[in-house]
Amino acid sequence: MRPSGRAADALRSIVLEPGVARHAEGSCRIRMGVTEVLCTASVEPRVPPFLRNKGEGWVTAEYGMLPRATHSRGEREAARGKQSGRTQEIQRLIGRALRAVVDRKAMGEMAITLDCDVITADGGTRCAAITGAWVALHQAFEHCVLKNTIRRNPLQDQVAAISCGIWKGEPVLDLDYAEDSAAGADANFVLAGKGGIIEVQGTAEGAPFSDEQFLRLLALARQGTEQLFAAQRKAIHR
Amino acid sequence: MRPSGRAADALRSIVLEPGVARHAEGSCRIRMGVTEVLCTASVEPRVPPFLRNKGEGWVTAEYGMLPRATHSRGEREAARGKQSGRTQEIQRLIGRALRAVVDRKAMGEMAITLDCDVITADGGTRCAAITGAWVALHQAFEHCVLKNTIRRNPLQDQVAAISCGIWKGEPVLDLDYAEDSAAGADANFVLAGKGGIIEVQGTAEGAPFSDEQFLRLLALARQGTEQLFAAQRKAIHR
Amino acid sequence: MRPSGRAADALRSIVLEPGVARHAEGSCRIRMGVTEVLCTASVEPRVPPFLRNKGEGWVTAEYGMLPRATHSRGEREAARGKQSGRTQEIQRLIGRALRAVVDRKAMGEMAITLDCDVITADGGTRCAAITGAWVALHQAFEHCVLKNTIRRNPLQDQVAAISCGIWKGEPVLDLDYAEDSAAGADANFVLAGKGGIIEVQGTAEGAPFSDEQFLRLLALARQGTEQLFAAQRKAIHR
Amino acid sequence: MRPSGRAADALRSIVLEPGVARHAEGSCRIRMGVTEVLCTASVEPRVPPFLRNKGEGWVTAEYGMLPRATHSRGEREAARGKQSGRTQEIQRLIGRALRAVVDRKAMGEMAITLDCDVITADGGTRCAAITGAWVALHQAFEHCVLKNTIRRNPLQDQVAAISCGIWKGEPVLDLDYAEDSAAGADANFVLAGKGGIIEVQGTAEGAPFSDEQFLRLLALARQGTEQLFAAQRKAIHR
Amino acid sequence: MRPSGRAADALRSIVLEPGVARHAEGSCRIRMGVTEVLCTASVEPRVPPFLRNKGEGWVTAEYGMLPRATHSRGEREAARGKQSGRTQEIQRLIGRALRAVVDRKAMGEMAITLDCDVITADGGTRCAAITGAWVALHQAFEHCVLKNTIRRNPLQDQVAAISCGIWKGEPVLDLDYAEDSAAGADANFVLAGKGGIIEVQGTAEGAPFSDEQFLRLLALARQGTEQLFAAQRKAIHR
Amino acid sequence: MRPSGRAADALRSIVLEPGVARHAEGSCRIRMGVTEVLCTASVEPRVPPFLRNKGEGWVTAEYGMLPRATHSRGEREAARGKQSGRTQEIQRLIGRALRAVVDRKAMGEMAITLDCDVITADGGTRCAAITGAWVALHQAFEHCVLKNTIRRNPLQDQVAAISCGIWKGEPVLDLDYAEDSAAGADANFVLAGKGGIIEVQGTAEGAPFSDEQFLRLLALARQGTEQLFAAQRKAIHR
Repeated sequence: MRPSGRAADALRSIVLEPGVARHAEGSCRIRMGVTEVLCTASVEPRVPPFLRNKGEGWVTAEYGMLPRATHSRGEREAARGKQSGRTQEIQRLIGRALRAVVDRKAMGEMAITLDCDVITADGGTRCAAITGAWVALHQAFEHCVLKNTIRRNPLQDQVAAISCGIWKGEPVLDLDYAEDSAAGADANFVLAGKGGIIEVQGTAEGAPFSDEQFLRLLALARQGTEQLFAAQRKAIHR
Repeated sequence: MRPSGRAADALRSIVLEPGVARHAEGSCRIRMGVTEVLCTASVEPRVPPFLRNKGEGWVTAEYGMLPRATHSRGEREAARGKQSGRTQEIQRLIGRALRAVVDRKAMGEMAITLDCDVITADGGTRCAAITGAWVALHQAFEHCVLKNTIRRNPLQDQVAAISCGIWKGEPVLDLDYAEDSAAGADANFVLAGKGGIIEVQGTAEGAPFSDEQFLRLLALARQGTEQLFAAQRKAIHR
Repeated sequence: MRPSGRAADALRSIVLEPGVARHAEGSCRIRMGVTEVLCTASVEPRVPPFLRNKGEGWVTAEYGMLPRATHSRGEREAARGKQSGRTQEIQRLIGRALRAVVDRKAMGEMAITLDCDVITADGGTRCAAITGAWVALHQAFEHCVLKNTIRRNPLQDQVAAISCGIWKGEPVLDLDYAEDSAAGADANFVLAGKGGIIEVQGTAEGAPFSDEQFLRLLALARQGTEQLFAAQRKAIHR
Repeated sequence: MRPSGRAADALRSIVLEPGVARHAEGSCRIRMGVTEVLCTASVEPRVPPFLRNKGEGWVTAEYGMLPRATHSRGEREAARGKQSGRTQEIQRLIGRALRAVVDRKAMGEMAITLDCDVITADGGTRCAAITGAWVALHQAFEHCVLKNTIRRNPLQDQVAAISCGIWKGEPVLDLDYAEDSAAGADANFVLAGKGGIIEVQGTAEGAPFSDEQFLRLLALARQGTEQLFAAQRKAIHR
Repeated sequence: MRPSGRAADALRSIVLEPGVARHAEGSCRIRMGVTEVLCTASVEPRVPPFLRNKGEGWVTAEYGMLPRATHSRGEREAARGKQSGRTQEIQRLIGRALRAVVDRKAMGEMAITLDCDVITADGGTRCAAITGAWVALHQAFEHCVLKNTIRRNPLQDQVAAISCGIWKGEPVLDLDYAEDSAAGADANFVLAGKGGIIEVQGTAEGAPFSDEQFLRLLALARQGTEQLFAAQRKAIHR
Repeated sequence: MRPSGRAADALRSIVLEPGVARHAEGSCRIRMGVTEVLCTASVEPRVPPFLRNKGEGWVTAEYGMLPRATHSRGEREAARGKQSGRTQEIQRLIGRALRAVVDRKAMGEMAITLDCDVITADGGTRCAAITGAWVALHQAFEHCVLKNTIRRNPLQDQVAAISCGIWKGEPVLDLDYAEDSAAGADANFVLAGKGGIIEVQGTAEGAPFSDEQFLRLLALARQGTEQLFAAQRKAIHR
């Protein structure tokens, strides 16, 4: 029995609430069990310098955590004067994941920033951020279509992410914080709605893992993201 | 008629939700109309260096705004690598306001950090932060009393804050963003439950204001904070 | 008897020396007792980005303190790599105070930076900076009129500032450092020559203060600034 | 035919030169074709604060690139005042990879920093850094055994890393810069000498990749690291 | 005829005013023509970490320039968030120059910081800072002798500095800003009272200079510093 | 006998290897005994803002040291977030030294950055950097002539640098680290191929030195740079 009491292939309860941010063009609050991330999508009618006059758009992400999102208070990155390596790694991952399903030519020269701010952390925040950011991004693109700044929604597929790990030798899906701390390996899978792998990051935290174990983690992730894709579709059709 | 349609002496709807943060010793979500601030109180069993071995506690505050709390996206302070002057000014104000009603000797050598993070901004965020932080601080102190780390709650009084301004020559209470932008003067009042003035910050943004105008603003603020004090008392007795 | 031996309503000796800075378009050294601040006004023929092509000018301020202006040496902000929250709060106040009496349309697209550097600190440096900066700004505008870069001096009124406090229950004017440290409340008043209130910042450092006390502080401030206005007028007519 | 003319499963020429750094306890220059990385291992007789008095050692890594290691000059991170997100991500990866094969209890309370500085970049620098750093670390541990500061070499296994990618639909081993820029997917594999997976990072840069493709990349990586492990063994037995 | 109209070997007017800073243990305002630098010496009863428990003292310097000390306003280093390379180079020079004449064993474990802040700049500020800082340091040491924290003044010699340059082929003493801008070479000499060379920094800004020219600059510097030494002696005996 | 066993006027072994950097327009690895510096010259077809539209080129330098170039590991400046005062002083010196022999009008509006990175440090790194950077710069200019971006090589002379010092009262040439630590005075001479002095920096680290000593150091430096000039000529004619 895993610490959370869930079956090896059980996700935590998922709640996706689109449109929660009063001012943003797109937004989604995602809850995966206790973990809660607020994702907003902000549209700006210009691209960063390296893309100017190329007729393409840009999608990027920033990630943050409220100081008391965690069990003990973490230092505020704005006060410390810099973002940690972990923060930068996560926000680069979120940006790559979303860009993988966007037709940037179809965006024209505009940029969307996805802000993913963790309100409560209990494991899996980077995966929740990706899953929620996709809904926020979809809403922002729909907003642009309505405003006639783009002709069609440039999203080509869904993208969602989930973590898996090996707990007492057993592959399990969707680690919470307690499970993650105790897991012997931890892998984050970013998968596309049509089935492909967009990004895989697997780390053996104790003993290295075998190819078989890795394949079972991938299978669990595929099963988990199917449910996330369904939840996303439901959220955008509300 | 003021832009919000409210009477000159009408507060926006107030909602105080204590205990919303899963991990913090104390917390309160405050909504003043659309403005929403999440306040958490984090207890640490040590004081900053300048207070060591003096037998006193410390209360301090940090303030932040999610990038898309505002109409157009603001730069993330953690990414920019420093907190703005405005942020520092506000967090210093919140800290002073709360310390004014705490018996720091009674705390013993412990420190509480109040994190006030603006989820949605529509004017009056610093005042809402003070009002909500008092509830979070009260809850944190009660937690310490329960844990026997202090003998009694060191809060000596309530503290709440409200902004007032002069709109088309008329003193009005509790400015929202649209009103604040158009106001000729803007004053923030931090008042104590027993009636005293803890802090006053008044700024004439257009023409200087007269003593009479200033006194009418103070009277409005007193009327407004009475309602805030009542809401605080209700929140801590839930 | 207050620590300085002055009557409750007595200012320290005031000396305003305009034109002391060799290279600046405007300047004034102000001494309030031992406190000494050097204020310079620097004219630049362009405005910050947010004002471009709006036909208005800009006035802003920066504040600094020599490391050994104080009783014990303070860390040099340039060496530490950032300005403190206190410094930023003060320089924002000085900028707002001066902008309140400038017709920015009449300036055209030019910017003036007021540098207020504390040579010796003995309380009241932010107030002295405002009072001295007004003289430096006046001189810089006169310089521009002479050079024909503006047609008339855009200053619409005088502005001066003074601190008041409550010492052993007694409202007193113009606190020096020793008095400020011992005062139960401290308020800075920025007043206009024609009588209006431009900015008020009052903080109860011990017990909250009452409305009556606050009004007596305001009356003292008005009395003190009358003398400062007279000194400013004398300085600009030398 | 791939751009480099190599067979799909061919590594670039590998040169490992241990002991090249005059002052370091351990070092290795690694060349993978044109890519050249200098790895040094520096021993310090103390651990970071979070490990004090736990009887364990620490291994960490820092990564840098000479400004003109690349085709066009990159900004010097020391001059810019911060390390990029990419740099931080890479140095965190190198540190994790090496720690995975170290018995930190057997180290006792000492720390080793692996500095991996890229002299010439032509793709695969993070993988080369890991492979070379293992040799430097081995040498440093042998140095400590000789000096009697540890009893036995705490390395439990070899670790090496290699990138693979999909070039025109074809999985290929060990991408150089030109190939990496054109590849449709890019995966870095950090493998253990005894066969386990220590870390996998796969990113679809164009279309998502399938499970089958991913498994073929893993097989290529295993084949490539076998040669790297042999080269490492040869290097440490010189 | 040189731009200033002075003879080739003429110094500008020198004024040294010791004791001008109200709070500092030692201070001196130095004027060399229009150039004006305020030097303060601050005593602290502890040394930096690298000197702890060695029974020696430390003398260090910091240098700054008020933003409008110069013809056009310079950016405030505290606002920019770092000291320029020029500032750091100068403050390192001042510290080395003064340490060269201090018996640091005789100081015991205390540190003196020399703050040299340029009020008005017209060339030669680093040299003026050294000459003035010596007077401030002397005064601070005398203060310590009086307070019995040291037994005797640890200064072993005088130190003063002057710049020389080649103007239209002619070696000249004590360049002001206009001369410095036009000079073909610029050398700063830091000389000891007893005749030795403490530091020489010569830079050919146009054509390289010959040994003969260099020796003539040194002779001029020696002549100039004789007058500075006399002025220092007069200042400390006031 | 000096610590290195060399005669008072003997240089260490010199090796100059031009063209070692795969991607740079010009490069040179210089070894002076154990000291090793990699110098690259990077050409960019634009000048910094202060030179725009003046028809002149720019030459600048940056200096760095690999963390384990030294006996004990030094902190990485990129990780610390700023360059030390020493680094900035050295890179300013290198830039000035090279600019002194360049006809910047003949360059046209292009900029060359000289990156000097110390691979192994054993004293004299700044001097080696200047000597090696001249070869890299020469090669970069030849590259531009070949590419027809400039008509002729704008170098007007050679430049090389060497340190001298006083060891047990005896002037000696080319100090290594052990000698430098023990020397009573240390001077760096930057000399031109045609015989002039470009820059002199002499510092008495113990007792001040006399004019005679200084002249003997200069004579030694001239003798040493003759050999460096010969080595540079040989390097560029390979």
